[in-house]
Amino acid sequence: MKAEIITIGDEILIGQIVDSNSAFIAKELNKVGVSVVQITTTSDDANAIVNSIKQAENRADIIILTGGLGPTKDDITKLILAKYFNTELVFNKDVYNHVESLLAGRGITMNDLNSKQAYVPKNCEVLFNKVGTAPGMLFKQNKKVYISIPGVPFEMKHIITERFIPFIKENFITEEIVHKTVMTQGIPESHLAEKIELWEDSLPLEIKLAYLPQPGIVRLRLTARGKDRTNLLSLIETEIQKLQKIIPEAVYGFDEEKIELAVYKLLKLQNKTMATAESCTGGNISALITSIPGSSAIYKGSVIAYSNEIKHKILNVKEQTINTYGAVSKQTVEEMCTGLLNTFNTDYAISVSGIAGPDGGTDEKPVGTTWICVANKDKLIAEKHLFGEDRGRNIRRATLTALNMLRNNFLKLSTTNY
Amino acid sequence: MKAEIITIGDEILIGQIVDSNSAFIAKELNKVGVSVVQITTTSDDANAIVNSIKQAENRADIIILTGGLGPTKDDITKLILAKYFNTELVFNKDVYNHVESLLAGRGITMNDLNSKQAYVPKNCEVLFNKVGTAPGMLFKQNKKVYISIPGVPFEMKHIITERFIPFIKENFITEEIVHKTVMTQGIPESHLAEKIELWEDSLPLEIKLAYLPQPGIVRLRLTARGKDRTNLLSLIETEIQKLQKIIPEAVYGFDEEKIELAVYKLLKLQNKTMATAESCTGGNISALITSIPGSSAIYKGSVIAYSNEIKHKILNVKEQTINTYGAVSKQTVEEMCTGLLNTFNTDYAISVSGIAGPDGGTDEKPVGTTWICVANKDKLIAEKHLFGEDRGRNIRRATLTALNMLRNNFLKLSTTNY
Repeated sequence: MKAEIITIGDEILIGQIVDSNSAFIAKELNKVGVSVVQITTTSDDANAIVNSIKQAENRADIIILTGGLGPTKDDITKLILAKYFNTELVFNKDVYNHVESLLAGRGITMNDLNSKQAYVPKNCEVLFNKVGTAPGMLFKQNKKVYISIPGVPFEMKHIITERFIPFIKENFITEEIVHKTVMTQGIPESHLAEKIELWEDSLPLEIKLAYLPQPGIVRLRLTARGKDRTNLLSLIETEIQKLQKIIPEAVYGFDEEKIELAVYKLLKLQNKTMATAESCTGGNISALITSIPGSSAIYKGSVIAYSNEIKHKILNVKEQTINTYGAVSKQTVEEMCTGLLNTFNTDYAISVSGIAGPDGGTDEKPVGTTWICVANKDKLIAEKHLFGEDRGRNIRRATLTALNMLRNNFLKLSTTNY
Repeated sequence: MKAEIITIGDEILIGQIVDSNSAFIAKELNKVGVSVVQITTTSDDANAIVNSIKQAENRADIIILTGGLGPTKDDITKLILAKYFNTELVFNKDVYNHVESLLAGRGITMNDLNSKQAYVPKNCEVLFNKVGTAPGMLFKQNKKVYISIPGVPFEMKHIITERFIPFIKENFITEEIVHKTVMTQGIPESHLAEKIELWEDSLPLEIKLAYLPQPGIVRLRLTARGKDRTNLLSLIETEIQKLQKIIPEAVYGFDEEKIELAVYKLLKLQNKTMATAESCTGGNISALITSIPGSSAIYKGSVIAYSNEIKHKILNVKEQTINTYGAVSKQTVEEMCTGLLNTFNTDYAISVSGIAGPDGGTDEKPVGTTWICVANKDKLIAEKHLFGEDRGRNIRRATLTALNMLRNNFLKLSTTNY
């Protein structure tokens, strides 16, 4: 099966935004054995869109259009598609009700522009867009499949994963492909490759390994292909169990699981609570944890101490400690944790203090120097890390490292419950 | 002048990397009045590449190929191009010497693969690649211009800005294109469209408007085309001034500026400080502000009060207030701000308390209900907002709304300094 992606949007052609939707779609299609043979970005212009569709038909079985479906005047895709498939726009009651209730939930009343979103081409199958107002549409013609979906990334992702990939699986797939991704934190890609080299070299022929690094995280994706799904699953499970024994401190979860979710689940399971005291990470640990629905069960909050005064006033870090050792020191992060446990009365505490950059570095403590402490009432464990020069990546790495330190030192169970 | 970009690379078609080169090239071309009419990503395959070139010729005057020139693949791409332009590969002494000295600088001696990089099609003009080993190539045929350059971003950028854009400027008189993007917060896209309809309908013919929504933000992009750049700039400025009078509370900046940066710059200019008390936003306001280098000059920190106990203990919210009105109420966010100003001793305070969901909603206070307060010593301004059902987007919207409330109520200057 071959697919083509057509991205509609002048904002990409003028370089205002980078098309990251196509990479997401290509990846999802690849997982079910569909290869993308071309990606085309075209303008919000009827002729350009129709020509792109016609050319894509010559090369592919599946044509995916994204973008051009917003409620405002610059969006014309729906009318073009109705004409292209010789049909007219008709009112769709389900879509109307959905748009109405979605807007009502935001305290917005329907206007004319919103109502128009409930009109869809008569011969299309609606790919219901639960998270937005523009419905996705699926057409079939001459044994080819066409879909048109919004370009807003979270709406696009929703329709691709919840509506379109299931449709493809049901209608077209033959060979079995099994993916499993191992999430690791704390070992740089090149060191990881060395550590697991023997394991990697002895993988069965059915399994391919890919390294997918992000700042602070390396994902190891195992892909198995063959006829028998049960056999592939069992092959992968065996290999992952071997891997976990080699790098237990790094493996925190599977399949795009976020480390904050791994930590949340372990705390929830053990009925424990935590709090954070953040300096250089500036609320990022807190933001990750509170992104999880229900996190208030395990999380009491944070003190973002972006000045020494606050470290002293709320966390009871001694002024003398800061004067003697500096705000970025073992002593300071330890006192931050102690103060946190006393004030927030939680089972665990995390504290971070570092130099995120670009300014503030010295010879002794260059940009990237970061002290992290994790603690409970009985034990304080502090570590010094040296990250890099980029502010954003330093913040990200410190955040992930702190969460993995809590997991490794106090929560443990994570790598045994696969 | 119209251009097309053809990106060669299987790694993009499988979704492993996102094509960010095209956005860079499109932006650079736009600046000199060349518009990009299509971007195509095609595979490392002779037929696919030749077909893409042929189709691009029908639409554009300039065809830009990126990628497919690495040391292992370059003879293929180069051979394809030599054949396409009816010529042969010839040895180029300048390129050879350059590759040799570049590799020597890295302590590498020339091998066969490297030597081949010095062979280029006979009728091409070499776009000298000072920063890498694969030379760029420029061809002319039937009044059209073709270039083939490496896909490695820093090599691509070098050749585009140092070699190709100067060539375009010198050889073609081009139309001017001016873009300006207005950043707005707080008015949903469909309502914005209604509010500015009269203004939009009376825009001069030279200007086109596009709506680019993100959760909590709508960008309005004005594009002007014509012969005289000064005139276009003045036309756009006039229209933006009119727009600012219609929606002054929504317009916080221009050209992809982040709202946290707008707030930071205003505080810095006025030599003021702020702190935050976050419940449902869980550290996201803090994380945005501290992402800015130097933010410690205006930001003292935050209390992430994810439990009522902490609201009371650190922020001095009265237990009676929470019991009577609830944690999500005008009274609670006001007391959070007051407590914050007293403890952190800043000029301004922001507090947020809401129901991010998916759980915790009631008939009276459904998921998405959010109270936000902004304050200084003399004044407390609290607003109730009803966002949507999605936790992540509720957090994002509350975060952006809170920052815009501080700007609108206390910092002001932003929309007058365009």
